[in-house]
Order: sequence, then C-alpha cells, then structure tokens
Amino acid sequence: MTSYSDDLALRARDAARLLANADTERKDRWLLHAAGALEKRAAEVLAENAKDVASAAQAGLSAANIDRLRLTPRRISDAAAGLRAIAALPDPVGRVLDRRERPNGLRIQKLSVPLGVIFFIYESRPNVTLDAAGLCVKSGNAVILRGGKEALASNTILHAILQDSLRAAELPIDAVQLVTTPDRAVVGELLKLNQYIDLAIPRGGEGLIRRVAEEATMPVLKHYMGNCHVYVDRAADLAMAERILINAKCQRPGVCNAAESLLVHAEVAAEFLPRAAQALQAKGVELRGCLVTCALAPQAMPATEADFAAEFLDLILSVKVVASLDEAIAHITQYGSKHTETIVTNDEDAAGRFTARVDASAVLVNASTRFNDGFEFGLGAEIGISTDKFHARGPCGLQELCSYKYVVHGNGQVRE
Amino acid sequence: MTSYSDDLALRARDAARLLANADTERKDRWLLHAAGALEKRAAEVLAENAKDVASAAQAGLSAANIDRLRLTPRRISDAAAGLRAIAALPDPVGRVLDRRERPNGLRIQKLSVPLGVIFFIYESRPNVTLDAAGLCVKSGNAVILRGGKEALASNTILHAILQDSLRAAELPIDAVQLVTTPDRAVVGELLKLNQYIDLAIPRGGEGLIRRVAEEATMPVLKHYMGNCHVYVDRAADLAMAERILINAKCQRPGVCNAAESLLVHAEVAAEFLPRAAQALQAKGVELRGCLVTCALAPQAMPATEADFAAEFLDLILSVKVVASLDEAIAHITQYGSKHTETIVTNDEDAAGRFTARVDASAVLVNASTRFNDGFEFGLGAEIGISTDKFHARGPCGLQELCSYKYVVHGNGQVRE
Repeated sequence: MTSYSDDLALRARDAARLLANADTERKDRWLLHAAGALEKRAAEVLAENAKDVASAAQAGLSAANIDRLRLTPRRISDAAAGLRAIAALPDPVGRVLDRRERPNGLRIQKLSVPLGVIFFIYESRPNVTLDAAGLCVKSGNAVILRGGKEALASNTILHAILQDSLRAAELPIDAVQLVTTPDRAVVGELLKLNQYIDLAIPRGGEGLIRRVAEEATMPVLKHYMGNCHVYVDRAADLAMAERILINAKCQRPGVCNAAESLLVHAEVAAEFLPRAAQALQAKGVELRGCLVTCALAPQAMPATEADFAAEFLDLILSVKVVASLDEAIAHITQYGSKHTETIVTNDEDAAGRFTARVDASAVLVNASTRFNDGFEFGLGAEIGISTDKFHARGPCGLQELCSYKYVVHGNGQVRE
Repeated sequence: MTSYSDDLALRARDAARLLANADTERKDRWLLHAAGALEKRAAEVLAENAKDVASAAQAGLSAANIDRLRLTPRRISDAAAGLRAIAALPDPVGRVLDRRERPNGLRIQKLSVPLGVIFFIYESRPNVTLDAAGLCVKSGNAVILRGGKEALASNTILHAILQDSLRAAELPIDAVQLVTTPDRAVVGELLKLNQYIDLAIPRGGEGLIRRVAEEATMPVLKHYMGNCHVYVDRAADLAMAERILINAKCQRPGVCNAAESLLVHAEVAAEFLPRAAQALQAKGVELRGCLVTCALAPQAMPATEADFAAEFLDLILSVKVVASLDEAIAHITQYGSKHTETIVTNDEDAAGRFTARVDASAVLVNASTRFNDGFEFGLGAEIGISTDKFHARGPCGLQELCSYKYVVHGNGQVRE
C-alpha cells in the first residue's frame, strides 16, 4: 500500500516528467488563466481566508502573524499581477548555456532542463502559494506545497484554482499539489523521498529551516538568516553613508536583507556616529554599541557578543567602531551570515579589498543592502535567497530552479 | 581541545580564505613546481609505492586492485603532465558570469568564486591524489584528501611533494591536507563539519558513495553508477550502430561511461542482432538478452530483471528488443542511472524525442557513450562525473568546483 506521502511524491514525479517538455505557450497560458480565475473568484478566496484569520485570532496569534496571513482585494490583485509577471519572463528551460564543436566533429550543447520535483515548505502567507507554484511550473518543475497550517483553508481554495487552471491549460494537475494534513510527520516522510523529490526549499523561521536541512535527504535551497552589515569606511561620503544606513535599517526592518549591524572606521566615527545616531533615533531605532560607540552616541546602550551575532528583524542595530578595513572584514567574517554586506567608501582600493574578501551572496559598494533581491537585480521574481555556495547563491528565480544536461550530436564517432 | 578532524578542517578553512584571492600566476607556479618535483623525486615515490604494493599483495588484494594501486615511471610522468595541463587551463575564479546595469544606475556583476573547502574521498589510486589536489587548488579551494588506506605510503610522499611546492609558491600549505589515519571514524567526523567543509566528493565503489551521501551534512558531488544504454533505432545506420556499440561496450569496460545495455528496435532486430552478437562474441562479451534476443542470437543467455539494472563494469551486456522508441525511453527511465545514454538513428524526429525525454547527464546521438568525459567534451580535466541535477551535472572540472557571488557597485542608491 502506498502511503500519503509516497502517493504525493510519485504523482509529482510523473507530472514533472510531462512538464519537463511542456512548451512555453502552454505554461504561460496556465499562468494567465490562473491570474484571471483568481480575480474572478476573489470573493470565495477572501471568505476562506477569513476563516483562517478568525481561527488564528482565536488561537491568539500575534498581530504581525495575522497580518501575514490576511488576504485583501489588493493582495489578491497583486498576486494575480505576480502570476502575469512570471508569464512575461523568458522560459528558463531549453536555453543553450554552452555550445562547442570538437575536432572530431562532435557538436556539444549544454542545455538547461528543469530540476524535477520541488518540495516547498513555507510560512503562513497564502500569496506565497501562488508565487511559488508559478515559478516552479514556469521552470518546468512539479511542486509539492506545504504552507503553514494556519493558512490551510486559504491554501486549499488557491490550490483548487491553480489545478483548475492546469486542467484548462492541458497541463498535468499533479504539477501543483498541496499537503492538506497538518500532521508534521508527513513533512519528515517527504524529506526522506530523494528518489522522487529533487530539491527542498524551506522558508520561514530559522528553527524550521534548520529542521528541514537536517532531515532532508535531497539538496536544500535556503538561508538561515541575514545578519547584514553596513561598513562606513574612512573614505566614505558621510551624507551618503547616512542615507544608505537609514534605508538599509529602516525601510523594511523585518526582512532578511535589512541591515542589522553598523561598522564605522575610527577615523570618521567622531564625525559620523553622533549624527547617525540622532537620525536613527528619530526613526525609532534602538542602538547597541561597543564602548567607543557608547562614548560618541549617548543614545546607545552597551552591546553584548550576542547582539553582534543577532538578526533582530526589528528596529534595533548593533554598532562597532573598527580600527581598519581589515578589522571590519574580520568582524563580518566572524559574525556575518554570508547574506548581504555593503561598504560605503570613495576609495576604490578599499572597495576592491572589501568585495574580494567578504564572503557573502551579495557584496555592495555605496548602495543599500536592501537591493539584494531578484526584482532589484533585474532577474525577475524569486522563490528565495540562498546563502549557500552550492548550485545557487543570492536571489533564486526561474534560472536557479533549473539544472542542465549535455546533448551531443555526432555522425558515428567512437572513442580511440 | 580540538580533535584531529576539527583541526584538519579549521586549517583547511583558513587556507581556503587565503586561497580564494590567490592570483593565477601563483597557483600555476605551484602546479609547475609540483610537476617538476614529482619527476625529480620519482625514485622516492616509486620506493614508497612499492611498500604499498607489497602490503596489498600480502593482504591478498585482487590483481586489478593492485594494478590501480601501482605507480610506474610512465604513470608518474603522466601525472606530472596532468598537473602541467591544469596549469594551462584558464583560471575559473573571477570570471564575470553575468553583468547588468539597472535603471537606477546600479552595476551588477555575477562573479565566479571558489566553493571553499572540499573533502575528497577516493579509491586507492595514488595518481588521483595529484589530479584532485591540482584541480581543487587551481579553482581556489582547499582540499582534504582521504585516499584508500592501501595507498597511504604513496599518498604520504605525494602529499609531502605537494606541500613543499605550496611553500615554494608561497601558498598556504594547508591548502592540501591528507588524512593519515586509517581510522574510518575520522571520515564520519569530517562529514559532520559543514561549518568548515563546503563539499564532499566521494569516488569509488557504490557502497562507499552511498555511505558518504548518507553521512554528509554538506553537499555531495557524486554518481552512484553508470548503467548506460545504446539504443539502435529502426532508422539507424546499422554499420554505424555496430561500431558505436562495440566501442561503448569494449573500449574500456571497467569505467562508468561504458555501455551496459543494448536496446534494439524490433523492426531492425532480425538484421542487426545476429551480426552484432557475433561481433560482441568475438570481443569476448557475454550477452544476457530478452526472449526475442535469445531467439535471434543464440550466443545470448536469458536476462533477469537484475541484469537490466546492473552496472557490470565487465564484458557483459544486457540486451532487449523494444517495439518502439517510446518503449526504449521507458526502459531507460526505469533502469537507467541518469549517466549517459545514446541513440543511433538517422531520423531527426526520433533523435529529438530521445534527447528531450531521456533524463541523463549526457544524451548522445550517433556517438559512443564513452565520450561523456571532461577531456572529450573539451572542458579539461575532471574530478568526477555527477549524475545529480543540483549544482553540476556530467563532467565536473574547474568551473564546477566554483560558486559565484554578486558584486554590486552604486553611487549612493537606496531602495524606495
């Protein structure tokens, strides 16, 4: 007898085989159909979502979590626009990544192909259901969705809409499947099925991601956290540094590419820190600084070791004065999460040392950390950001959901 | 107190940080110096290798295994030539993989960077020690080598030569480290250290590779086996098909890209199989076929299910007559190992269906499976072949030992 998880995974595998060679027009037809159906059935979706929100309120979820869970007419039309935007992106499958002809006449092509089956485990944000399904199917992959249990009613109606549209576009409906049981054991079972599932992508809190990474028998695309630094070099334009710092910290403090820590070169600390601290304080940012910081900016309270390692995801910033560029790089190497790091400087040599020696998915010069994002990089929608080095790093969109194969044409060549 | 494995891994991590920005000239100087030193100290190397060979003979190792273990003056000069060939390859680090300028003026570069620390676990072939070290260091990675315990004396002298050359080239000597204890527990400990080690590459028997894949907490680059098929389509040039089949099966039967199974379209089976069977028999190949095969080629004995799934690595071939191209593809999907598959046909549609629908690291048309190889593809030396889809597939050389990072230059951009 096949278990629930085996059945899900096997059907996903079979759908993935059909989907691998589905033509672009059909996949885009699905995306556009789903966008339209979502708008047409918005009232139904909002009614199901209201049930989730009511249960969550009763269960005492925080206001922030309920806000993530809630759909609004605006969020639904944004999600529909997101699906249409994915339809407008080029098909990542079948691209010729490399082409060479050998002296013996063999013609070798390296072609992009889908990964296969993706298991996507995510927080209780129903709009993510649509984004993830859109990206996976457009890149020729089948997806098994496992959203937060608080969003089950919302995800169930969204999944029904996506499957209806798959049927309308004559694509296999098992290309998008939803885990409908809240039983966490099913997640563990699916993470064992590396004969059917090619990739797991967990998104959410660090605890969830660590659990998935430990249990998974297939590759995992992930980042644990973003402890991102802004380093103000001695050769910085200090007005620019302040703008970048405020933006990196305050524009959206709850996301992974927001700054969590400020490093300031000692030569400019006395000039920069008092005014930066004032500007941050005006934005409601709490400062936790080293001894020198506390002396220069009375708003700051003393930082602990843990503060320098923390991802606050809140209006809190750790601050350290460093004696040199090398000390800044060493601090980032010790405490950073390899996510996003920025230097503010007009010294090209310093910028070059920083970008070469800091090991992170994105290293920026004179720009806000908030730019490490698929849209901002001009790569289109992303399914997540990877801080690993294997396969994909930084924003992961359609191309990163693909593998490749070598296709070789000959006319009877044999090896000598 | 730091354990042996922690100490190895930490030193490798520190060396990797220095190596990441080492310039090409210095890495190539190391390779050339090591090649020269290897030739100069050949007598010493042969003397140490003779000790390994003597112990192996005493322990009753098979002749084939002793042959793999043995170094000869010819094998040493081939290995030196291999190091010089790696020096001649372009540096894979620092390549601009993508470059874009955003409307807001941000200049985004995607630059190749080393993976970091590689743990390489391999069979008792001492020349592999040199290849692997050369490829890892040229790609800016530190490597921890764990060769078969039968080769320990040989590997110890080779490692000393490599470290002397690192010193001479002013590169960190911990860039190449050797596990000198035969204790297998150390392998298990190292496979837990994903905070220091970025990639594990096991090479050898399927059992070893499965054990490493199960125990590793970091990504693993691998292939379990190569069950490669030659499919002779009804539109095949049968003389060409015979040449390709004989080459794929017999040119070097003990390697992963040798053919293990033949599929023949029913419409040409009566013409092709008797003569192919005769040619294979003349080469000493044992045939294990389906019922139709046995009827057409009396040399064949009946095949079992296990024969179709087997990687013989020997002069044995499973044979099946199929009713259609689709049946051939279905058979490969069921029994294949996603390594290398070839179709012989003059029908472009059939070739197109085969290359699109067969899921393998390399799919060939009218050419021998034996071409799935870094040198044959014109990619240079390889550290192995991957049948996985994540990160790298097919031959893995210098480029596949690299990751990338985004380096972004701005002039004060903040996110709106």
